[in-house]
Amino acid sequence: MLSKKIDIDRWLDKFKRIDEKLKRLALLSQLSQILNSTLDPKEIRRRAMEAATQLMMAEVGSLLLVNEEKRHLYFEVALGEREEDIKTISLNFGEGIAGWVVQHGKPLIVNSPAKDRRFFKGVDERTEFKTRNIICVPVKVKEKTIGVLEAINKKGKGRFNQGDLSLLTSLADQVAIALDNSRLYQELEEMFFQTAESLAEAIEKRDPHTGGHTQRVTFYSQAIAKYLPLTPLEKKWVKITSVLHDIGKIGIEDGILKKPEQLSPEEFDIIKRHSNMGAEIIGHIRQLKEIIPGVKYHHEQVDGKGYPDGLRGKDIPILAKIVAVSDTYDAMTTDRPYRKAMDKEMAIDELKRCSGTQLDKEVVEAFIQAYQNGEI
Amino acid sequence: MLSKKIDIDRWLDKFKRIDEKLKRLALLSQLSQILNSTLDPKEIRRRAMEAATQLMMAEVGSLLLVNEEKRHLYFEVALGEREEDIKTISLNFGEGIAGWVVQHGKPLIVNSPAKDRRFFKGVDERTEFKTRNIICVPVKVKEKTIGVLEAINKKGKGRFNQGDLSLLTSLADQVAIALDNSRLYQELEEMFFQTAESLAEAIEKRDPHTGGHTQRVTFYSQAIAKYLPLTPLEKKWVKITSVLHDIGKIGIEDGILKKPEQLSPEEFDIIKRHSNMGAEIIGHIRQLKEIIPGVKYHHEQVDGKGYPDGLRGKDIPILAKIVAVSDTYDAMTTDRPYRKAMDKEMAIDELKRCSGTQLDKEVVEAFIQAYQNGEI
Repeated sequence: MLSKKIDIDRWLDKFKRIDEKLKRLALLSQLSQILNSTLDPKEIRRRAMEAATQLMMAEVGSLLLVNEEKRHLYFEVALGEREEDIKTISLNFGEGIAGWVVQHGKPLIVNSPAKDRRFFKGVDERTEFKTRNIICVPVKVKEKTIGVLEAINKKGKGRFNQGDLSLLTSLADQVAIALDNSRLYQELEEMFFQTAESLAEAIEKRDPHTGGHTQRVTFYSQAIAKYLPLTPLEKKWVKITSVLHDIGKIGIEDGILKKPEQLSPEEFDIIKRHSNMGAEIIGHIRQLKEIIPGVKYHHEQVDGKGYPDGLRGKDIPILAKIVAVSDTYDAMTTDRPYRKAMDKEMAIDELKRCSGTQLDKEVVEAFIQAYQNGEI
Repeated sequence: MLSKKIDIDRWLDKFKRIDEKLKRLALLSQLSQILNSTLDPKEIRRRAMEAATQLMMAEVGSLLLVNEEKRHLYFEVALGEREEDIKTISLNFGEGIAGWVVQHGKPLIVNSPAKDRRFFKGVDERTEFKTRNIICVPVKVKEKTIGVLEAINKKGKGRFNQGDLSLLTSLADQVAIALDNSRLYQELEEMFFQTAESLAEAIEKRDPHTGGHTQRVTFYSQAIAKYLPLTPLEKKWVKITSVLHDIGKIGIEDGILKKPEQLSPEEFDIIKRHSNMGAEIIGHIRQLKEIIPGVKYHHEQVDGKGYPDGLRGKDIPILAKIVAVSDTYDAMTTDRPYRKAMDKEMAIDELKRCSGTQLDKEVVEAFIQAYQNGEI
């Protein structure tokens, strides 16, 4: 009977192990869903590191990314109190466990780092952290190693094993895919902004008085947006509106746009059409309907004395109010044919003076905050 | 001893089942990697359906998507010989198993469809397929059901069970994430194209002779591209180059651009600057460096008599050669102040005549193929 008993114990043990494996695979599946359900690279990196920690049942996890130019690895994110210390550390290719993994493109388990020549003691020294064991796998996009995912100190008295390695490798593959998708998205977004900016600047260049105006307005508006309660998406709209606010000028003829003398009231009426014309151009872009009011109303004033529709206060959309402040500040601080540029301080005083009549109070306040924090 | 023997058999059975579950979870993890490693929606849908078939060990799998407007479900893809028959079928919300799943937002297993009132016999009738059993789960993006994933006829004599349901639900969650990421990417891409098109058209409108020119050139170039050995990425460059080929005209003053009479040689020399100016504008957009030569050289001729650099044959990049043919054809087939438009046939004859001297032979050939297939 004894031999049977032992057999059953062995079975139970095997059963327990396979059951644990099952749970961890289910966890892996769950973690990959979480990883892939965002296209924000920062968020993916944070989730990757948390997933590595959880899946490996480790004390900490980290994600190091390759900087091809500098030929080193840097800690993109690391969990725990010592995060800020760790972020300042970088490893050359070949240096440390992570450096070895990048150089060889192979995973590695080191259960006795003190005895391993590859182990880089710098991180422990700088963070007063004690590395007992470490598991590290390459993160590969199309055969190219773009970083490493690692977990440190298996919880309890455990050591990392081949089962851990196989799971962490699967996770790293998912991390690679998620990072690659987010990179493609970011690049497309950058292409969009750069194209819109370049075309807007080309359009702006017809007007000899306003070199660099679009770029500066975009810069100021983004600084303002930081100090207003806006969502990340709304902040994107602020940027796009600022880039495209003056594109309606494409419809104004050279004779008026390039006139060096002050404009007659009739000519100024023609110039004023640019905000409606800009809104009309944007109107053809389905995905940009959110910014039409921003472009159309960027010359409205809160006291109702603006154009094209003479809207008042609350009826003016926030996007238009932001561009109005940036636009006004830029007009004051650049040279015009008929007057010199004001200095920053004077322009700020002028913004304050116009706050509540021409310009929106809250937006002027945000501008001043950005200015005081040295961002403008 | 007999009771012990039975115990072991039960253990073995349990062990076998858990081991199978392990393998299927590993398969799920692999399938989700495959699903997420593309942003092409068509490819995701195909992979989703293949994954459902494989994971469920079924004869066929299909993905039905919701059309909100028509309030019905359509077969986006279906595997097997009957795909074309199946694609013509759509189910109203509430109709059939899939319609029930969409309406209730809940998964469903039907192991005796003949006895289930919810089962829609239309598909079997039209495809001569015999549905023995069916498993169907909703595909949800942020709580909203965008479609269903289903598998039909468990291989062997099996029936679908709760284990299958849990696996297919996990797969459907991954499908939802992959489809949502691809949707976000597509929307951004569309925003890019629409913005580039709208700005290019606004720029073009300054020239009163060329209404709709950019749009038509883009249309022709894309038709040509279909008949040339180009990759999908190269086809995208063709589109972008065509949209932006004339943006350099922003730098040409009204006096010349809008002149109703034929231009003097000096004035024409100024017009000719637009290709270099266009290339310069594009030069500021990091992601568009691929198309700079296309914009710069779209007025070159294979015999070396074009501008700005008088390049010959092979030295002219393919993007420029494509735009040149589209541009020439559009110039011939639209009215100009000093002459009427040619009809299509005459313009085609003219393209043939210029093939090998002004225009590239292969590109003209592709244009003619597109024309003969009714695409131009």
